[in-house]
Amino acid sequence: MTEIANVDFSNRQSLPGVDPQFTHRWSPRAMQRTAIPQDDLAALFEAARWSPSCFNDQPWRFYTSTDSTFDTYLNLLNASNQTWAKNAALLGFIVSRQHFRHNGKPNVHADFDAGAGWMALTLQAHRLGYHTHGMAGVNYDAVYEYLGLERENFRVICGFALGLRGDPATLTQEQQAKETPSGRVPLNEIWITADR
Amino acid sequence: MTEIANVDFSNRQSLPGVDPQFTHRWSPRAMQRTAIPQDDLAALFEAARWSPSCFNDQPWRFYTSTDSTFDTYLNLLNASNQTWAKNAALLGFIVSRQHFRHNGKPNVHADFDAGAGWMALTLQAHRLGYHTHGMAGVNYDAVYEYLGLERENFRVICGFALGLRGDPATLTQEQQAKETPSGRVPLNEIWITADR
Repeated sequence: MTEIANVDFSNRQSLPGVDPQFTHRWSPRAMQRTAIPQDDLAALFEAARWSPSCFNDQPWRFYTSTDSTFDTYLNLLNASNQTWAKNAALLGFIVSRQHFRHNGKPNVHADFDAGAGWMALTLQAHRLGYHTHGMAGVNYDAVYEYLGLERENFRVICGFALGLRGDPATLTQEQQAKETPSGRVPLNEIWITADR
Repeated sequence: MTEIANVDFSNRQSLPGVDPQFTHRWSPRAMQRTAIPQDDLAALFEAARWSPSCFNDQPWRFYTSTDSTFDTYLNLLNASNQTWAKNAALLGFIVSRQHFRHNGKPNVHADFDAGAGWMALTLQAHRLGYHTHGMAGVNYDAVYEYLGLERENFRVICGFALGLRGDPATLTQEQQAKETPSGRVPLNEIWITADR
């Protein structure tokens, strides 16, 4: 593999006091198909496990590929995601349980809570040198069927790829053009304090 | 104020390698009504700002109280949340934009992505010594009206309280009994790798 260039975060001007784990997290597509030690892998989902959730319901579920199921997981992704995700170390799907454990009623916060778990997983991954990349482009019908999940009780939110950063030369031209940390809208668009 | 006891995390047995920011994060109800420096406050929402989202759409919005609107925000919470949240430094609401910026189509990942932003906000808060507590118990109709949001375009996900940890003696007996870091279900309930 050719040497991977350092990542340029210069387009991510941030306020002081913000931990770099947030500004230096990004979602590359170029990854390495290197096996991840089981202890590292377990730490990622363990980080997600301690996330906050409504009624501490912990509605998140993470399904992940093994050596023997990697190709099956890969085939559950859209064709365009398959072109780069084939080089990831691991593929997975994020699922939310749609009813509360304690009373069986619908949990309208399940996806929101699963997002918190996903962020914890991602930040822990970065601490260990890995990267994640979420994928909305998956064959949802096929995922429900493969994982044996009923839409009434579970929601397949998205897929994800995990791995060490890889060589951008493995990507298509179009993907290479996007292989850089993305910017954000101004803070005042998302944090609103104006008195009404 | 009486001295606040150290938090007992002994019920949170975690795998090695997991950053303590995840296992030592919790959601107390007892908070202090101390003003938070503006730089600290901005850093929390700045941390959320850099979270990942589908198409980098950044569908999260955080509305927060000021000195002059604190009581109004407080009155938008359910009565039981008001009993403790009145002592928080700041109250807020988390809102997701329901349509993509780039094409106006429904964004079914908006709540999930907002959850990632919320987790970043919470972890950054803990780094600065603050705590957060999410609240599903809010008067949603009144929040939509007060913030001027239409359900077609926005979803009010939940409320939250933010502040330095306070004296548990300010809580009701029932709240005091719950004022401790919560446990979690076993890892193998949320991380599933079994070949099918």
